[in-house]
Amino acid sequence: MMAVTELRASFRARLDQLTQTLVEMARLAGSAVERATRALLDADAELARTVVADDAALGALGLQAEETAIMLLALESPVAGDLRRVMASLRISSDLERAGDLAAHVAKVTLLRHPAQCVPADLCDIVREMGEVAERMVEKAGIALVTSDLRLASEIEGQDERMDTLHRRLFHILLAPDWSGGIEPAIDLVLLGRYYERFADHAVSVARQVGFLVTGEPLH
Amino acid sequence: MMAVTELRASFRARLDQLTQTLVEMARLAGSAVERATRALLDADAELARTVVADDAALGALGLQAEETAIMLLALESPVAGDLRRVMASLRISSDLERAGDLAAHVAKVTLLRHPAQCVPADLCDIVREMGEVAERMVEKAGIALVTSDLRLASEIEGQDERMDTLHRRLFHILLAPDWSGGIEPAIDLVLLGRYYERFADHAVSVARQVGFLVTGEPLH
Repeated sequence: MMAVTELRASFRARLDQLTQTLVEMARLAGSAVERATRALLDADAELARTVVADDAALGALGLQAEETAIMLLALESPVAGDLRRVMASLRISSDLERAGDLAAHVAKVTLLRHPAQCVPADLCDIVREMGEVAERMVEKAGIALVTSDLRLASEIEGQDERMDTLHRRLFHILLAPDWSGGIEPAIDLVLLGRYYERFADHAVSVARQVGFLVTGEPLH
Repeated sequence: MMAVTELRASFRARLDQLTQTLVEMARLAGSAVERATRALLDADAELARTVVADDAALGALGLQAEETAIMLLALESPVAGDLRRVMASLRISSDLERAGDLAAHVAKVTLLRHPAQCVPADLCDIVREMGEVAERMVEKAGIALVTSDLRLASEIEGQDERMDTLHRRLFHILLAPDWSGGIEPAIDLVLLGRYYERFADHAVSVARQVGFLVTGEPLH
C-alpha cells in the first residue's frame, strides 16, 4: 500500500512540475508578444532581437514538457483523469510554443524593415491594442492553468472577439480606397495581423484545454 | 506467455490501424489542396464548397486517431519504440489536420471573392505550381508513413525549398513598382501564399516525424 501511495505522490509531483513548466511557457509567450509589439512600434531592432533569441528558451521548455509527459506516460501508465491531464499538457505546450513562434515572427518583420518603421502612424493604436489583447489572453491562460477557473476561459474567448474586431478593422483600413501607404506596408500589416490573430487562437486553444481538464468534455 | 503475445498482436494491429488513419488523412489533405487550387484558379465556388465541407471528415479522422492513440497509451502502456510511435502519430495527425485547415482557407478565399477571380492571369502559373508542390509533398509524406523510407523525407525537404522559392517570387511580383493589381488582390495573394507555405511546412513536419520514428533522433 505504501509503495502505491509513494508512486501516486511522485506522479502528482511530476504532474505539478509539468504544469509549472506550462505556466512558465505562458509567461514567456506573454513577455515575447509584449516586447515584439513594443519593438515593432518603436522600430527597436535590439529589442526585436531579444524576442527572436528568447524564442529558443520557449522551445527548450516545450521539449522539457514533452519529455516529462512521455516519462509520465511510460513509467506511470496513467489512466482516466490523469491521462487526460498529460495529453492536454502536451497540446498546451504545443500551443504555447507556436504562440511564441508568432511573437518571434512579429519581431522578424521589425528586423526586416529596420531602420524603417513598418506601422504607419494612423495604424499604431490598432497594432498596440492587438499586442495588448494578445498578451492579456496568454497571461490569463497561464492563470487558468493553475486555478482551473472556467470563468477565465470564457473571458479569454471574449477577448478573442475583440481581437477579431481589431483584425477586421485593420483589413478595412488597408482596403479602403484612400489607403496611400503602398503595397509593401500593406503586406507587412496583413501578415502582422495574421500573426496576432493566430497568437490569440493559441491562447483560446489553451483555455479550451483547461476547460477539457475541468469538465472532461472533448474539444474539436 | 500466450496472453502477452496476444496483447502484442492486438497492440500491433491497433498501431497499424492508427497508421492507416494517418495515411487516409494525408490522402484527404492532398485531395483538398488540389481541389482548393483548382477552385481558386477557375473561380469555381461549387468545388470550393466541397473542400470546406470535406474538412470536417479530416477533423473526424484526426479525432479518431487521437482516440486510438489515447486508448493505446491507456490500455497497453507502450514503452520505448512503441511509445515513440504513438507520440509521433499524435503529432502527425495534428499536422495533417492543420494542413487540411489551410486548404480550406484557400477555398474560403475563393468563396469570399466569387464570382471574381482572385488570382491575376500573370500569377496563375505560380499559384498552380504552389498547389502542385503542396499536393506532392503531402502525398509523399503519406507514402513515407507506410514505407518509413527516409529518402522520401529528404525529397520532401527539397520540395519545400521549391515552395519557398515560389513564395519569394510571388512576394517579389506583388512588391514590384509595376504591380497594378491593387491592394485587395495583393492582400489575398499574401494570405494565399502563406497558406501554401504553411501547408508545405506541415508536410515537412510529418516527414520529420517519420525520420524520428526510423532513426530515434529527436526533432525540434
